Amino acid sequence: MDVPPDLELQVAVAKVRKYAVSESGDTVEMIERPQGGLSLVIVDGQRSGKSAKAISNIVARKAISLLADGVRDGAAARAAHDYLRTMRGGQVSATLNIVSVDLVTRTLVISRNSHCPVIVGEGRGNEVQVLDGPSQAIGVHSRTRPVITELPLKPDLHVVVFTDGLLAAGQRQGQALDVPLFVRQQLAAYPTNNCARSVADALLNRAVELDQGRPSDDISVLVVSIVPRQQPDGTRRLSVRFPI
Amino acid sequence: MDVPPDLELQVAVAKVRKYAVSESGDTVEMIERPQGGLSLVIVDGQRSGKSAKAISNIVARKAISLLADGVRDGAAARAAHDYLRTMRGGQVSATLNIVSVDLVTRTLVISRNSHCPVIVGEGRGNEVQVLDGPSQAIGVHSRTRPVITELPLKPDLHVVVFTDGLLAAGQRQGQALDVPLFVRQQLAAYPTNNCARSVADALLNRAVELDQGRPSDDISVLVVSIVPRQQPDGTRRLSVRFPI
Repeated sequence: MDVPPDLELQVAVAKVRKYAVSESGDTVEMIERPQGGLSLVIVDGQRSGKSAKAISNIVARKAISLLADGVRDGAAARAAHDYLRTMRGGQVSATLNIVSVDLVTRTLVISRNSHCPVIVGEGRGNEVQVLDGPSQAIGVHSRTRPVITELPLKPDLHVVVFTDGLLAAGQRQGQALDVPLFVRQQLAAYPTNNCARSVADALLNRAVELDQGRPSDDISVLVVSIVPRQQPDGTRRLSVRFPI
Repeated sequence: MDVPPDLELQVAVAKVRKYAVSESGDTVEMIERPQGGLSLVIVDGQRSGKSAKAISNIVARKAISLLADGVRDGAAARAAHDYLRTMRGGQVSATLNIVSVDLVTRTLVISRNSHCPVIVGEGRGNEVQVLDGPSQAIGVHSRTRPVITELPLKPDLHVVVFTDGLLAAGQRQGQALDVPLFVRQQLAAYPTNNCARSVADALLNRAVELDQGRPSDDISVLVVSIVPRQQPDGTRRLSVRFPI
């Protein structure tokens, strides 16, 4: 039997809402996979504010509840699409990304139902790969499917997923963010010890800066990093913080 | 209308499994409340290892999915009990704690179905309150109900929830942890900036130390802190890390 390499999983989410809107239309949820590992779901509901939040909430809830039952990611994404389309008569769309760390297959599984690319970095300071194959948002067309990429878990593997507020940042001022380039620079510069958190915060901060402190849309950033093990103990840690 | 005070929510979970067992029988999950805020669910399944994990997984999944639908905490706890009792014919028990930050009522809601007390600290270095009223684990007896405590959100409010592995730590060596005293000392000593994380890590580290590095049971610790706002931005942050 292969002995799994001594790795550490780091997950970081950073999330802001559109300026002067009471509620973010993005929803990010995490769930443990019953066979081992975890899944993250990022949903961006059409439009912004309360109505967008209601949409992203029902989509995230459906996907999370299926993943918690052990349903495979592709089926969960299809089901979330069918459910939204049935509930809203095909009138409302949402983008949906699922990122899973599957400890049975020892792979990272990335499901895209979004026009936003996903950035994959391997090693430190190397070129990054941009997953930007054509992909449809869920809820509107019939038989929409996710675009799925599966990568073996290995040291210094990084996946960056975001909603389109990150692409919109700075566009009004004609200075949109080159996300792949920025991610590559961050991966070269940051310490392994706190990699995912550093990259997620740097991306979000830069976007908010480009929007001059007033985000023109909801922005969510998720970074999943597989790095050589940092902490000697087997402890699992989760932290959350936000103003209330 | 009352203006809500300028507060920050901090959540920290630290979790280890019993020594020489492949899987923790504890499950900790978090979900956003559809009306605002979040809920955390901590379940300790009877016995340890794979069978305990299967039990804690179905209980946590049921509670999380109801909370995600907007079901109130007390009803979610009752439903999780009824579900486990039906599924397993009353032969298997689990402890269940739900901690919710409810932004509609602006309260912290603590539901206990566990013999483990919950520690509540207010202010820095003051006495702590021990919520230890009689409370039944779920799954076995008929019509089991949670013991619920509801506290208004205010600065320097801390809630510490844990599974019974924390109480078992060091018992073999006759030096069990005085959890209320330890929490009180930690709350007096730690910086507001990273309060929940510091307290959770300190508690778990001390327990593992008392067990001489080989936890005699699964241990999970959850700390929820409401502190004066630390970060100037409105960003929501989530971090996870563990060896894989």
